[in-house]
Amino acid sequence: MQKKIPVAVLAATGSVGQRFVSLLADHPWFELMAVTGSDRSIGKSYQETCKWLLADPMPENARNLKVLPSSAEDLGGIPIVFSGLPTDTAKEVEPYFARAGMAVFSNASAYRKEEDVPILLPEVNADHLSILQAQRKHHGWSGSIVTNPNCTSTGMTVVLKAIQQSFGLSKVFAVSMQALSGAGYPGVASLDIIDNVIPNIQGEEDKVEWEPRKMLGKILNDKFGLADMQISAHTNRVAVSDGHMVCLSVECSSRPTVEDMIRVLSTYLGPEDAQHLPSAPKPVILVKHETDRPQPRLDRLTGNGMTTVVGRIRVDPLFHIKMVILSHNTIRGAAGGSIFNAELFARQQNIIS
Amino acid sequence: MQKKIPVAVLAATGSVGQRFVSLLADHPWFELMAVTGSDRSIGKSYQETCKWLLADPMPENARNLKVLPSSAEDLGGIPIVFSGLPTDTAKEVEPYFARAGMAVFSNASAYRKEEDVPILLPEVNADHLSILQAQRKHHGWSGSIVTNPNCTSTGMTVVLKAIQQSFGLSKVFAVSMQALSGAGYPGVASLDIIDNVIPNIQGEEDKVEWEPRKMLGKILNDKFGLADMQISAHTNRVAVSDGHMVCLSVECSSRPTVEDMIRVLSTYLGPEDAQHLPSAPKPVILVKHETDRPQPRLDRLTGNGMTTVVGRIRVDPLFHIKMVILSHNTIRGAAGGSIFNAELFARQQNIIS
Amino acid sequence: MQKKIPVAVLAATGSVGQRFVSLLADHPWFELMAVTGSDRSIGKSYQETCKWLLADPMPENARNLKVLPSSAEDLGGIPIVFSGLPTDTAKEVEPYFARAGMAVFSNASAYRKEEDVPILLPEVNADHLSILQAQRKHHGWSGSIVTNPNCTSTGMTVVLKAIQQSFGLSKVFAVSMQALSGAGYPGVASLDIIDNVIPNIQGEEDKVEWEPRKMLGKILNDKFGLADMQISAHTNRVAVSDGHMVCLSVECSSRPTVEDMIRVLSTYLGPEDAQHLPSAPKPVILVKHETDRPQPRLDRLTGNGMTTVVGRIRVDPLFHIKMVILSHNTIRGAAGGSIFNAELFARQQNIIS
Amino acid sequence: MQKKIPVAVLAATGSVGQRFVSLLADHPWFELMAVTGSDRSIGKSYQETCKWLLADPMPENARNLKVLPSSAEDLGGIPIVFSGLPTDTAKEVEPYFARAGMAVFSNASAYRKEEDVPILLPEVNADHLSILQAQRKHHGWSGSIVTNPNCTSTGMTVVLKAIQQSFGLSKVFAVSMQALSGAGYPGVASLDIIDNVIPNIQGEEDKVEWEPRKMLGKILNDKFGLADMQISAHTNRVAVSDGHMVCLSVECSSRPTVEDMIRVLSTYLGPEDAQHLPSAPKPVILVKHETDRPQPRLDRLTGNGMTTVVGRIRVDPLFHIKMVILSHNTIRGAAGGSIFNAELFARQQNIIS
Repeated sequence: MQKKIPVAVLAATGSVGQRFVSLLADHPWFELMAVTGSDRSIGKSYQETCKWLLADPMPENARNLKVLPSSAEDLGGIPIVFSGLPTDTAKEVEPYFARAGMAVFSNASAYRKEEDVPILLPEVNADHLSILQAQRKHHGWSGSIVTNPNCTSTGMTVVLKAIQQSFGLSKVFAVSMQALSGAGYPGVASLDIIDNVIPNIQGEEDKVEWEPRKMLGKILNDKFGLADMQISAHTNRVAVSDGHMVCLSVECSSRPTVEDMIRVLSTYLGPEDAQHLPSAPKPVILVKHETDRPQPRLDRLTGNGMTTVVGRIRVDPLFHIKMVILSHNTIRGAAGGSIFNAELFARQQNIIS
Repeated sequence: MQKKIPVAVLAATGSVGQRFVSLLADHPWFELMAVTGSDRSIGKSYQETCKWLLADPMPENARNLKVLPSSAEDLGGIPIVFSGLPTDTAKEVEPYFARAGMAVFSNASAYRKEEDVPILLPEVNADHLSILQAQRKHHGWSGSIVTNPNCTSTGMTVVLKAIQQSFGLSKVFAVSMQALSGAGYPGVASLDIIDNVIPNIQGEEDKVEWEPRKMLGKILNDKFGLADMQISAHTNRVAVSDGHMVCLSVECSSRPTVEDMIRVLSTYLGPEDAQHLPSAPKPVILVKHETDRPQPRLDRLTGNGMTTVVGRIRVDPLFHIKMVILSHNTIRGAAGGSIFNAELFARQQNIIS
Repeated sequence: MQKKIPVAVLAATGSVGQRFVSLLADHPWFELMAVTGSDRSIGKSYQETCKWLLADPMPENARNLKVLPSSAEDLGGIPIVFSGLPTDTAKEVEPYFARAGMAVFSNASAYRKEEDVPILLPEVNADHLSILQAQRKHHGWSGSIVTNPNCTSTGMTVVLKAIQQSFGLSKVFAVSMQALSGAGYPGVASLDIIDNVIPNIQGEEDKVEWEPRKMLGKILNDKFGLADMQISAHTNRVAVSDGHMVCLSVECSSRPTVEDMIRVLSTYLGPEDAQHLPSAPKPVILVKHETDRPQPRLDRLTGNGMTTVVGRIRVDPLFHIKMVILSHNTIRGAAGGSIFNAELFARQQNIIS
Repeated sequence: MQKKIPVAVLAATGSVGQRFVSLLADHPWFELMAVTGSDRSIGKSYQETCKWLLADPMPENARNLKVLPSSAEDLGGIPIVFSGLPTDTAKEVEPYFARAGMAVFSNASAYRKEEDVPILLPEVNADHLSILQAQRKHHGWSGSIVTNPNCTSTGMTVVLKAIQQSFGLSKVFAVSMQALSGAGYPGVASLDIIDNVIPNIQGEEDKVEWEPRKMLGKILNDKFGLADMQISAHTNRVAVSDGHMVCLSVECSSRPTVEDMIRVLSTYLGPEDAQHLPSAPKPVILVKHETDRPQPRLDRLTGNGMTTVVGRIRVDPLFHIKMVILSHNTIRGAAGGSIFNAELFARQQNIIS
C-alpha cells in the first residue's frame, strides 16, 4: 500500500479544526501528523486541551498528538496544511507556511479576495487550481494558498455552476437560513436564538454576493475575473445545529423549464478531475421531489455531508426558477471542502498516483 | 358611558379563536357575548372545553360562556361576528351570517379572492371598505364579509403601501421565516421543527404573491383590481413561537435612497380614518436601527403586537432596497387585525360615535 | 452462508416501525420479508405510503414491500414478528400471532403487566426468557409474546441491575427528561415544547415505578415476582429529538463509594448469553468522566445507540449515590431493544447456530 | 405625593442588571438615580453602552444615565444599592458600600454563606432581617448586605416553608430543569443546548442543598442556624429562555394527604410584614390543577413573575408527596426578589411610611 501524505491541522481545537481532525481520521491519502493551537494549549496533548464538540468520538490517532504553535518551523517537512485559523491570524501566518513550501488549504476568508488565490470547489472550478503557478511566481513562494468559499456560498455556487453551464446566468436572489455551527464555538448565545431568528450575520452578505462570481469567473492574464452576473443576498441565523439552507431565485440567459432544471441539476457531474477523489460528493447534487425537502435535520448528511441537496424547483414569477438548497456547512462548507481541495491538488501534482 | 357592541367569536376554542377572546377581554367598544365551537364542545362552558394556549390567563368574561353551534340563528341579534373558522367551514357558513345581517370579520382565506370582498388592513386600504355596498347588493345580503390577509402578507403589505405611495413599486422579492403559531394547534409536529427548517408552507406562496396586489390595487366598477407589480415569494417555517419575519427586496418606480426609505417608513401614518381606532398600531411602522433587528422574540410585541417592525434597510444590488420585516402573526396578522377591521367598520357605519 | 430468518414488522409506517425497518436493513440474522400497516396504507408499496422520518434513507429492501394487514394469516410462515403497534391494537392482535405460532417481540405496553410475559433486556434479565414455556402452556400458544420495557425504564434498569447485583438496592429516585420521539409522530405539538418543558407524560410514571421491579425480580412458580425495592419517578418532556435522560439517586443495601460505583458500572457485562449477539451494546454501560456528560445530542449514538451512558456519579446526601443516565429511546429503548430480544430468543432456540 | 428613595444598580448592563433597571422603571417607592458598569462602559450613557436583551423597551429614565464605576464614593448619598455584580467582584466591593452606609441588596452568592448575612425571601423569612443589627455591629458597618437566594432555591424554598410550617419537613429531593437566562449573557452557547440537555450547572447543587436550610432555619445568638433536614439536588440546563422548574419530593414530619398539601400551599400567605409590599406576589403560591402544568412558557409570568407556581401535587411512593414547581428565575429569582427584599427593608426601617 502507498504511503500516506503527512498533513497538519492549524487551530485544531476550534470547531472547524475538530471537523478536520474527525474527517482526516481514516483518510485514504492523508495522515494527520501534527496539530497546532493557541498559546494556552501548546505542549498539551490534543485530548487534554480540546473540548471535543462532535458526536463522533475523538479519533484515536489525534488523542496523543502534542499541540504545537501555528508556525512553519514547527511543522517542517509536512507538505499539506489545513487551516481552521480565525481570519486575523490566518492573514498573518498563512503566507509563512506558503513561503516555507507548504500547500495551505484554508477555511479562512483572509485571502479569498486576492486575485491570484483561488476560492476552490473541485466540482465547480477545478481548473482554477492552475493559478497556483502564477501565485508562486508572484509571491516568491514555493508553497501555495488555496481557500474554500464561505459556507453559505458553497452549496449555492455548486448549483449556480450547473445552471450557468446549461442556461447562462444573469441574476441571483439568495436568502439564507444558516446553522449555529457556522459561527464557531461558543458562537451564538443560546438566549439570542431560542424562539428567535437573527436577521444578520456580520459580513456574510458581502461574501455571498461576491465569492460565487469569482468561482464562476475565468482566469485572465494570471488573475481571476468575476462572472458577469448580479447577486443579492439576505443572510439569517436560525435555530439549527448544522446545515445551511438557501432560498434561491435565478434568471438565466435563456429561460429553462422546471423539467430542464431538474434534469440539469440532477445529472450535473462537475469537472472530470474532481469526480473520482475520495471526498467527491456522490451525487454532486441530489434533487429531492418531496414538497417539503430538503430539511437540515433530515438531509444534511446526504453523501456524507458532501452532496448539495436541492428541492422545490419551481417557476419564479419574477425571475425564471426558484428552489431551495441545503449544504452541510461544517463538512462541505468548511473542513470537508478543504480536504476535497487538497485531494484535487494532490492528484494534479501527482503526489498521489 | 356608551353601550358596547355585542360580538361573537366563531371557532373560539381554536388558536386564532383564543386570541380573539383574549384581545376582546377589555375592548372599549366590543363586548364578547357568544362563542361557537365544534360539535364536541357545544353546550359546555368555554373554560370546560377549551385547552387554553396563551400565557395570559383566560379572561373572566369568557369562562362561563356556553359554547354554541356556528350558525346564524344561534347568534341572532349579534351584529359583529369574528371568524376563526378553518377555510372549509368558513366557505360554507360565513355567507349565512352575512345573509342574516351580520358583519363577519374573517380570518379565513375562503373569500379573499372574491372580487367584492375586501382584504382589509385599515392602515393600508381603509377605503376598500366602500366595496361593501356593492357586495351587499350583489349577494342580496344585509350583512357583509370582510377578510384580513394571510399573516405573512400582513406586515409586508403595510410596508409595501408606504413604499408604493412614495416611490412607486414594480418588483418585490419576499422570503418568509414563519412562526409555528401560524399553523394553528396542534399544527407543526415538534419532531419536524427541532433543529430544523421546513422550506414550504402549503399554499402560502400563492397567497403572498397575490394578496398584497389586491390590497394595493384600486376598486373599478365595484370590483377590486390588482396593483401592477410582480411578487416572488419563498415561505419557510422556523422554530419560533410567534412573529413572522420577511426578507424583502423591492424595486421602485424611482430609486429611493436608504435615508429616503427610512424616513418614509418611519413617518408612515396610513389613512386618517384608521389612525385613531382602539387597535391602531402606534407607530404603524417602527424602524429599528440596530444591525441585527427586528428579532421575533424581542420585537414581536411592539405596539401591543400591532406595529410592523422593520430593520436593516440597505441598498439591494439587484433591485433598489432590501430590508427585514417582522409582524406578530396571531395579533396583527390574525385576531388583532380582524378586530382592527371591525373597529374601522364600526366607525364608518357610525355604530360607534 | 447461513440462511436468514424471515421477519415482519407490524405497524411499519409509524415512528417505531420505521426504526425497525431501518435497523433490520443489514441485519446478519434477520431478513425483513413483510410489513403491515393501517387500512389506508394496505396494498400500497412501503415507500409510497410511508412518510419516512429518519435521516438515514429508507432501506432498499423495504421500499417495494407491499403493505399487508396486521393479521396472522397474512404473515403465515414468518416465525418472528416485531410489533410497533399502538397499545390498543397490540392488546387485541398480538395474541393471534402468538397463537399462530409466531414469536412476537413487542414494543407495546399491552402485555407487560402479564405475569407470564417477560419484559426483556438481554443484558439485564436474559434468564427471564425461560418463562416462555409456561406462557405457551398457560395460553395454549405455539408462539409467544416478549415485550421490551418503556423507553425510560430501559436505561435506568440496565444501571439498576448492575447496582443490585453488586450492592443490593432498596430505594430509587428517578426524574426523566425525555425526548420528543418517545411520543411518536406527530406526537408533541411544536407549540407545546418550544421554549418550554412539559412536566408530565401520561401513564409514564407508573411504568417507570413498576417495570424495573419486574425486570429485577425473579420467576417463582412460573410467574414473575417483583424485586423488593421502592421507586419514585417524575417524568418530563423536553426539547430533544432523541435520547432520554434520567437523574437517578439510589440507596443500596450496603453503601458503595463513588469509585466502587464507577468500577461496577463500567465493567458490567450482563449475562453471558447476551454478550455476543449482533445488537449487544459495546460496552453495555459507558461511564463518562467529564463534568457535564452524558448529553443527548453528543452521546445518544454511543455503541450504535445501544449503550447506556452514565455520568456525574457522585455522593447523594439523602441516599447513597446520584448519577445521570442517557439511553437512546428509539434504538435501545424501542426497536433496537426488540431486535436484541429476538436475537437472544433465536440463539436460545438454536434457530441460529 | 411622597418622595421616592434614590437607588442605584451595580453592574447594570449585565442580564440581571437590565432586569433591575426594567423593574425599577415605574417603582412606586424607588427611583433609579445611578447605574454602574465595567471599565469599558464608564462615562458612556446607559443606552449607548448597554446591549439591551429584554423584550420590554429600555425605560426612558435609564437611557441617559451616565455609567459610573462600581464604587461607594461615586454613589455617595444613595441609600439603597442593588447589586447584579458577578460573585468575584461582589465579594470585593459590596462591603465597601455597606461600610459607607448603604443598604446593599445583592443577587450574588458571595456573602450568602456568612453567618450574619441573611438570604432573604420576604414571603418566607421576613424575620431574618433582624440579623442586620448584629451584622452592623460585627463588621462596624453603618450599612448592610442582604442577599437573595440562588434562582433555583427560590421557588422551592417558598414551597418548603409552607410545608415546614404545616407538616414539618425532613427530606427533600429536588431535580431542576433550569432556564438559559440563569447563566447570564452570553452564558450558554447555543450549540450546547440545541436538541440537548446539559446535566450539570457548576456549583448549583451545593447551593440548592444548603440555601433552603439557612432560610428555613432560626437565628440563634446573632447567627443563622440551619434547619434540620436533608436535601438532595440534581440540576440541569434545558432549552428554555426564562423559568426554572423543579421536580420536588418531600418527606414531612407527619404525612399529609394530597388535599392537605393543595390546601396548605394554595392558602399560604407568608409573614404579615411581606404581604402588602409593592412586589409581593399575588398569590404567593398558585396551585395549578391541569395535569401538565406548570409550564415555563405559559406560567412564568404569573403574578408579574413573582408568584411561585405549583402543580401535579400527588403521592410519592418513596417519600410523602411529589410535585412540580415553577419560578421566574430573573424576576422572582433575581432582580425582582432583591427589590422585594429592599421593600421589606424600607418598610421595616420606616423609610417608607
